[in-house]
Amino acid sequence: MSDLLSVAKKAKNASYKLASISTETKNLALKLMADNLDAAKKNIFEANELDLQQAKNLVVRGELSKAAFGRLKLDENKFRDMVDGIRDVIKLPDPVNKKLWAMKLDDELDLYKVSCPIGVMGVIFEARPDVIAQISSLAVKSSNAVLLKGGKESVNTNKAICAIIEKSLYQAGLPDGTVNQIFSREDVSQMLKLEKYVDLIIPRGGSKLVKYIKENTKIAVLGHSDGICHIYIDKMADWDKAIPIIIDAKTQYPTACNAVETVLVHKDIYKEFVPILITALKKNEVKIYAEPELCAQFTELIPMTETWAYEYSDLALALKIVDNELEAIEHINTYGSGHTDCVITEDNTVCELFMNLVDSAGVYCNASTRFADGFRYGFGAEVGISTNKTHARGPVGLEGLTIYKYKLFGCGQVVRDYVSGTKSFKHEKLD
Amino acid sequence: MSDLLSVAKKAKNASYKLASISTETKNLALKLMADNLDAAKKNIFEANELDLQQAKNLVVRGELSKAAFGRLKLDENKFRDMVDGIRDVIKLPDPVNKKLWAMKLDDELDLYKVSCPIGVMGVIFEARPDVIAQISSLAVKSSNAVLLKGGKESVNTNKAICAIIEKSLYQAGLPDGTVNQIFSREDVSQMLKLEKYVDLIIPRGGSKLVKYIKENTKIAVLGHSDGICHIYIDKMADWDKAIPIIIDAKTQYPTACNAVETVLVHKDIYKEFVPILITALKKNEVKIYAEPELCAQFTELIPMTETWAYEYSDLALALKIVDNELEAIEHINTYGSGHTDCVITEDNTVCELFMNLVDSAGVYCNASTRFADGFRYGFGAEVGISTNKTHARGPVGLEGLTIYKYKLFGCGQVVRDYVSGTKSFKHEKLD
Repeated sequence: MSDLLSVAKKAKNASYKLASISTETKNLALKLMADNLDAAKKNIFEANELDLQQAKNLVVRGELSKAAFGRLKLDENKFRDMVDGIRDVIKLPDPVNKKLWAMKLDDELDLYKVSCPIGVMGVIFEARPDVIAQISSLAVKSSNAVLLKGGKESVNTNKAICAIIEKSLYQAGLPDGTVNQIFSREDVSQMLKLEKYVDLIIPRGGSKLVKYIKENTKIAVLGHSDGICHIYIDKMADWDKAIPIIIDAKTQYPTACNAVETVLVHKDIYKEFVPILITALKKNEVKIYAEPELCAQFTELIPMTETWAYEYSDLALALKIVDNELEAIEHINTYGSGHTDCVITEDNTVCELFMNLVDSAGVYCNASTRFADGFRYGFGAEVGISTNKTHARGPVGLEGLTIYKYKLFGCGQVVRDYVSGTKSFKHEKLD
Repeated sequence: MSDLLSVAKKAKNASYKLASISTETKNLALKLMADNLDAAKKNIFEANELDLQQAKNLVVRGELSKAAFGRLKLDENKFRDMVDGIRDVIKLPDPVNKKLWAMKLDDELDLYKVSCPIGVMGVIFEARPDVIAQISSLAVKSSNAVLLKGGKESVNTNKAICAIIEKSLYQAGLPDGTVNQIFSREDVSQMLKLEKYVDLIIPRGGSKLVKYIKENTKIAVLGHSDGICHIYIDKMADWDKAIPIIIDAKTQYPTACNAVETVLVHKDIYKEFVPILITALKKNEVKIYAEPELCAQFTELIPMTETWAYEYSDLALALKIVDNELEAIEHINTYGSGHTDCVITEDNTVCELFMNLVDSAGVYCNASTRFADGFRYGFGAEVGISTNKTHARGPVGLEGLTIYKYKLFGCGQVVRDYVSGTKSFKHEKLD
């Protein structure tokens, strides 16, 4: 317990210093990270082999899924992607020390709103060991210190990668305590209570992990637990767009958080549209759930056993007939998770209404929900996808790891003069 | 309990609709609010008189402070300020539906980042009844629904004002449930648990209230509990700036959160500077606390009984001698509250270091900490002052009541084409 506290304090102290590290130094640290990881590839693969040996037993005993085992394994491709990812972050613009806004309050009294790092991030992720390099590079570029808790299955790989990262940051002259590993569940539950030292928690994992974290901390959490995305097929929809979009949104990566879970169809077209949809989905081995009344009309539909707020995360979705776009919007706002929702229509009025009234991070017209992703949005990096209503929403890039401070440059001004009327504010925007 | 739940649900439903209300309609609602309040002045004063009669007994019994009684009383000036405040909000630009960023992902696949309301705010404030009109006008302008809990002492005044506001919003055609009053402590503690319906909590009151709220909710809280502001007098300080700034920062409004609580003085100048500071502060009846060693050197100083993290909120401050700017910065980051801190210096290097390394919402050079205020910053309105490290920091204007959503306009695009390489992203910034 007390050990974690000292790690968190060290990270906090590092974070103050990180705020004034130059872009050049940060990019040097990133370059050293990439080069040193490349040079240590053999060692890292050996450490990974150790983790894999132990994980094999877990798989045999049914304590680890084959998918998790696959994510744990570091092969040549994943290693190259990991190192290339760090080099990509070098190319991104520095999100810190950007002038966001400026106002001349009075002569020689200038106010600047300047972006700055948030401070200390706590990142909890599951088995994938390549995440450690990705998160560390984003933390360095945004001048944030980080506490990293990886999956226990990849502990050897994580330690090997982290040792290289720490060495690289030291070589570049970054403060001690910039990147820190923590190891136990007890450490995580302790970290969630350290709101004095930890400013942001980023869980990277399944919805169970995210829910646990959200329920157990007062620190701001950046993430999403559910991804219940909808596609509404309006009566003015172009079916040649609707069908491929639904197929893409469900089958391109069924377990993704931005995959579609519910299709809503306007009542005026459902009799003709649903049979075509069923044929297309069947061809792609997608199960379709619906309420009994609809199942009675289409024998291929399966009676629903889950609620409308269920995330199938599989080749399965739910189907509902709605009276109009307003019912669709209400359904989405009631059962959705505020992630990404789409309308298929050629009617601009319906499109506008849907986009303004659906309260989600992403509102789409005639495009697959699978586009909800930081790289596809052109951010160059993705910290995570947030369904929060404050700070950052939707796919979050480096900017989401910053906040701002106000810098006021004066020459002795006091408020009394402005209250008494001796002086008055000019409030001229600077640019 | 269940009653509050239905109020919160009604507010949530209203919030979805509010997102698409035009600027004109919102301004009409504000104009009706101001006009109708003006017309109902007599009724409101009568309701206020009722509250004052009851409050008098509380003051006699020592259950209400004279200051709180003063805040409760609505006089002609306060009433005029309240109504003028609403008319000022009409003039502010609409913070909603602003295009913040846009990117062409590919031909006919355009992504827009657009500001939108947060949703439902829960605002808890103490005795001042004029707050209800101020908060309601900011909520309307930013298209947020609001649950308002005022001090129980002003219940009649609040009800009278709120009735006029509700009538005005109805006349303008705003959704039912936009502005809602809640009354009991039980309602507040219930509201703090409704993260599904309430998106942001804004406490407007003393640090005890703010602390209680922060400890009892998982909803984002916008505010500050402490205001422990510092002024550091560098060895290169201009004393003709230092003394007036300290006097202003302490005496212009001693109980304000942006008043100075601790003065740090560079060791090279303290022997000459401290006597001058003592004289100036004594003239203004400010008590000066210090550690025993310093008290031994200056008989006017009083030995400290509180920690360095104590908010005097009175004509009193603490004094400390530091070795250099780095010790000052470390002291501020350790004991400060991240509100507003100032350096007095003519040395640009010290100024820059201080501004970059002090982790506070406001970092000032040669200006009084009392400038930390939304109106003085030129925002035209102030929602509150935040010491959070996410979402909004420092004085918060209307913008702090908004978030954004991503609107994607396509013509049938699917992700599969971009993953397979059939198509590739263009990522051209639009403006």
